[in-house]
Amino acid sequence: MKFSINQKDLYNALNIVRRAVAKNQTLPILTGIFLKLKNNKLTLKSTDLELGIKYDLTVKAESDGAIVLPATQFLNIIRELPNEDVYLELNQDKWQLQIKCINSLFKINGYDPDEFPNLPQVEESAKFELPANKFKEMIKKVRISTSKDETQPALTGALFEVESEKVKMVSTNTYRLSFIEAPLKTSVNEKIAVIIPGTTLQELNNLLEDEGSVEVEVDSNYARFTFAGIEVISRLIEGKFPNYELVIPDESNSNFSADLSQLHGAVKRASLIAKLDANIITLEAANGLMEINSAEGSSGYAHEEVKIDLEGPDQKINIDAGYFIDVLKVLDSEEINIEMIGPLNPLVVNSQKDGDKFIYLIMPVRSQS
Amino acid sequence: MKFSINQKDLYNALNIVRRAVAKNQTLPILTGIFLKLKNNKLTLKSTDLELGIKYDLTVKAESDGAIVLPATQFLNIIRELPNEDVYLELNQDKWQLQIKCINSLFKINGYDPDEFPNLPQVEESAKFELPANKFKEMIKKVRISTSKDETQPALTGALFEVESEKVKMVSTNTYRLSFIEAPLKTSVNEKIAVIIPGTTLQELNNLLEDEGSVEVEVDSNYARFTFAGIEVISRLIEGKFPNYELVIPDESNSNFSADLSQLHGAVKRASLIAKLDANIITLEAANGLMEINSAEGSSGYAHEEVKIDLEGPDQKINIDAGYFIDVLKVLDSEEINIEMIGPLNPLVVNSQKDGDKFIYLIMPVRSQS
Repeated sequence: MKFSINQKDLYNALNIVRRAVAKNQTLPILTGIFLKLKNNKLTLKSTDLELGIKYDLTVKAESDGAIVLPATQFLNIIRELPNEDVYLELNQDKWQLQIKCINSLFKINGYDPDEFPNLPQVEESAKFELPANKFKEMIKKVRISTSKDETQPALTGALFEVESEKVKMVSTNTYRLSFIEAPLKTSVNEKIAVIIPGTTLQELNNLLEDEGSVEVEVDSNYARFTFAGIEVISRLIEGKFPNYELVIPDESNSNFSADLSQLHGAVKRASLIAKLDANIITLEAANGLMEINSAEGSSGYAHEEVKIDLEGPDQKINIDAGYFIDVLKVLDSEEINIEMIGPLNPLVVNSQKDGDKFIYLIMPVRSQS
Repeated sequence: MKFSINQKDLYNALNIVRRAVAKNQTLPILTGIFLKLKNNKLTLKSTDLELGIKYDLTVKAESDGAIVLPATQFLNIIRELPNEDVYLELNQDKWQLQIKCINSLFKINGYDPDEFPNLPQVEESAKFELPANKFKEMIKKVRISTSKDETQPALTGALFEVESEKVKMVSTNTYRLSFIEAPLKTSVNEKIAVIIPGTTLQELNNLLEDEGSVEVEVDSNYARFTFAGIEVISRLIEGKFPNYELVIPDESNSNFSADLSQLHGAVKRASLIAKLDANIITLEAANGLMEINSAEGSSGYAHEEVKIDLEGPDQKINIDAGYFIDVLKVLDSEEINIEMIGPLNPLVVNSQKDGDKFIYLIMPVRSQS
């Protein structure tokens, strides 16, 4: 294995595959990045056995070969090199890679590449394409509601439902819920419904760009996402996603809209006091105003007012300020629309954009001390 | 106490005094910021009993008063408010401050200001002025060599020697040493020699700007630095600073210069491998080249080459890469000048600028495994 490549190109490639490198040391080889050179094509791979990433790039090659290198070390060295051609050569007897760039010479000890696990195959799969920007948008809005509680695995991911004319994603930690549906033609005949892990959504969100399309392949155990030369393979979460449809109210009593950035600022400030206790805030909508109050705790009290357009009766509800801030962060409209039934029903944030339907539910907190 | 002030002005002021707020909770009131209003002058104060900061600003006042407010909370709230006038009013029965800004209202519980300790007085002191930019420059170069070892208190600070025609600062952790001397007229008759704590140097470095001058007052226990409306009062470290003069070599065998940024890059890269072990690198100066090598450890090996102009015999020395990087970071010339006697004598970085003399010593590491 002997080849050369521009420093920046190699650094960018490593920065992509590093996202699936194992964070714990249980299997040391998984903290490495797999490199394989064949006919001018350098393949980089990483996996923590849940998620795998593969990226190919063209290099100036002299001879083929493969090695696994410790990811952090390799990445740090390539980052600090000047933006020039880097010459890499394998010493297979020692599983050591030599890196040369102008006046720098490194030898990094690695692992036998035969010990690196293969990325899983996605078999007899359904296959379809999505626009990358749209898919990223959906992921951003659904990612926030996934649960961290490993005792309910299905909730640590998002339901991904694909039909011939629409794509749906849903996530919930039972205290809040994200639902997004986009009218997309998908070349899918039979409805697909799988659960994508929250960590996979996070890395897809990091890697997806606003241009091009994503090819998605799904079987019962794995999903593969291919875009911009990157291949992301994720284990799917087994189990049944809860019946979320019953939770989404199909009508409301009151409906109000507010300026998004004003509301965001107000909730953020009120939360500065509220989070010193349980981060619960009270929203009161009446007379064209939304009042936001923290409980009067030992450290103090916060009160905010935001102008709203209110249709329907006055409303009052206690909710977790953090859950509210999460959705205020990912909305990108100027206005926010909120629907309410009453103090014991969820608060519903509603947004429609380019035919997409986004619903975000926050369950009320029954009482506030 | 009732007054108003622009949000940004108040935030900037709090950002200055927060630097002396106590980090631990032993005395809760010290995690607060003291506010006192008298005749349109708002005085802000903080102290952790080692360091104290006082800052005055003019406000639109209606009535006088004082309170101590929890620093983090107060600062977070003021930061999130819009850049408008903020109205503050004390409820003295509850030691609670009310903060109003447009549609925001906060009440923060604070402490009785009578319980806040007075900042120490500097008595019968020597008093002189220094240019702020020059003093900051000296601090930056001397700060890096202070020790973290609390068992040798004198080494956790920097010696500060002031005479009528020059100012000197020296620090060392016994493995490296910073010495800087500047030809400054100071209005000091009798030589002053005190030890300023490393933490004080750090905060002075953060607060000092490149313009104006610093008024310094020193007695045997405290020093006061006054600049840009800010007053910093620091306890001095008792004890005797070691006799550093014996350590600084008065001659050298070899002398070489190199491009600073090239050398910095090379040492940083070599350290990526070296720091996986003890962060020791070997420097070899010969034939117009400085070679930088890490030991060949279990993780790999690094070799760097930098062009130098060498006068005198070849040299080879083992040093701590971290100590070398620290000085490469604070130098601001294009070239670096290094002097050496031999492998068992310190490596000396030498820089002269505008009459200032800066010497940085790194002790050799005897052997390298």
